[in-house]
Amino acid sequence: MQLVFTAQNLQANQLVQLTSAHYQHVIQVLRQPVGAQLEVVGADQQAYRGEIKTIDQEQKSFSVQLAAEALADTELPVNAEIICGLPKREKTEWIVQKATELGASQIVFFAGQRSIMRWRPEQVAKKLARLQQIAASAAEQSHRRQIPVVAYWPNLLKALPTGPHNLVAYEEVVKGQHDTELGRQLRQLQLELSQRPTVKPTVRVIFGPEGGLAPAEVASLQALAVNCIGLGPRILRTETAPLYFLSSLSYAIEVESFAK
Amino acid sequence: MQLVFTAQNLQANQLVQLTSAHYQHVIQVLRQPVGAQLEVVGADQQAYRGEIKTIDQEQKSFSVQLAAEALADTELPVNAEIICGLPKREKTEWIVQKATELGASQIVFFAGQRSIMRWRPEQVAKKLARLQQIAASAAEQSHRRQIPVVAYWPNLLKALPTGPHNLVAYEEVVKGQHDTELGRQLRQLQLELSQRPTVKPTVRVIFGPEGGLAPAEVASLQALAVNCIGLGPRILRTETAPLYFLSSLSYAIEVESFAK
Repeated sequence: MQLVFTAQNLQANQLVQLTSAHYQHVIQVLRQPVGAQLEVVGADQQAYRGEIKTIDQEQKSFSVQLAAEALADTELPVNAEIICGLPKREKTEWIVQKATELGASQIVFFAGQRSIMRWRPEQVAKKLARLQQIAASAAEQSHRRQIPVVAYWPNLLKALPTGPHNLVAYEEVVKGQHDTELGRQLRQLQLELSQRPTVKPTVRVIFGPEGGLAPAEVASLQALAVNCIGLGPRILRTETAPLYFLSSLSYAIEVESFAK
Repeated sequence: MQLVFTAQNLQANQLVQLTSAHYQHVIQVLRQPVGAQLEVVGADQQAYRGEIKTIDQEQKSFSVQLAAEALADTELPVNAEIICGLPKREKTEWIVQKATELGASQIVFFAGQRSIMRWRPEQVAKKLARLQQIAASAAEQSHRRQIPVVAYWPNLLKALPTGPHNLVAYEEVVKGQHDTELGRQLRQLQLELSQRPTVKPTVRVIFGPEGGLAPAEVASLQALAVNCIGLGPRILRTETAPLYFLSSLSYAIEVESFAK
């Protein structure tokens, strides 16, 4: 079922008017008729099932009758921020698409010491707009309640906010040994969520570009109290590592912690 | 560091002769000189660090002095079989690449009722050879100890082996609710591994194609005692779902179960 994001504040049982871009996409491109069902997400990230009631071709708008109850939330109970050393172009696009499906709240690219690519200042806005569009499509497709923010940091160390859950995935963490820091970190998050369910903690994980992080970069991060984590015994490509983390995060706090 | 798979049985401290394809790849393409380090995996899946000792250009062969100790294993302690409804071509290729990085032991594609694609019988061998090559490259890159087998099943129900851990990822498992069957299944695997560490259980997971599985397909699988699992509250694309499962599996049995 099609999902659309609107900046409006939605109420149960409301008759919502949607216009312009929504009209073009839902009515003109997807050719949805009166009576068609869709999901609408409002400014407060509440989503409602709705039915198209009227279509006004002259005004290029249509009305949707919302259901009496909001749909269940689909967002991770934590803010998950993925901070990736800038890889080749097509990899940025699918990291954004997949990280959005897997629940990331922010997706950042930074120019790592070993990044083959660099974004010239005049390129940044255009590239971010393209990636933000990919995030919006993936958020609709995966029935998210928010569209992740895509950002670019020319300087990782200066831009990194402080926080208790800042992590760096570092493959030099001895492979083949059982590195359990990720397990400790996710168990800590499970504990925090069980103790203070109303607070939404933020976990940030930094990933190297194709060439990996330079030891000096990792040392600088550790000086900022960023913890090194491994992602299992196999060596993951730069675009695979964030998906491993986000999947493990979802499993630990959305699936496993509820299993009896 | 470069890793190569050989069909030879390897011993610690052995001087190994590598020829033909290995010579072409390591010496001619990668231009590795005498003294270069690499990793060699033998027929028994034991891997050794090694150093190139001699290069014979006439015989197109080179010798590698293996170290005194085998490297730590990088394989999952279970056989993880990913069984995917046939998606579009480029998606088959990156499912194979990513599932190999994430530790799958077998990657199967099948013609689902809603698969847009079909492989004609005369195409199967050529397509599998191409995908098997992608699996081999990904296995080298991620430092696996085995190359996953890629297969095609024209008929899912007839080809599916019986087993205690046959699962199907079915998104109609009510989304937004906490579906905990995956958590129960992975905890059961953790338990089995702790009780019988020498036995390597096999877990198989079936994933639908782009259009999803038809209800009749799911019913037929349930009649074969295949358990439905959800993969968290968001709707994942057909190529993302297997990565979520393999990452969660690795987290549960290679990371979390060792965390104190």
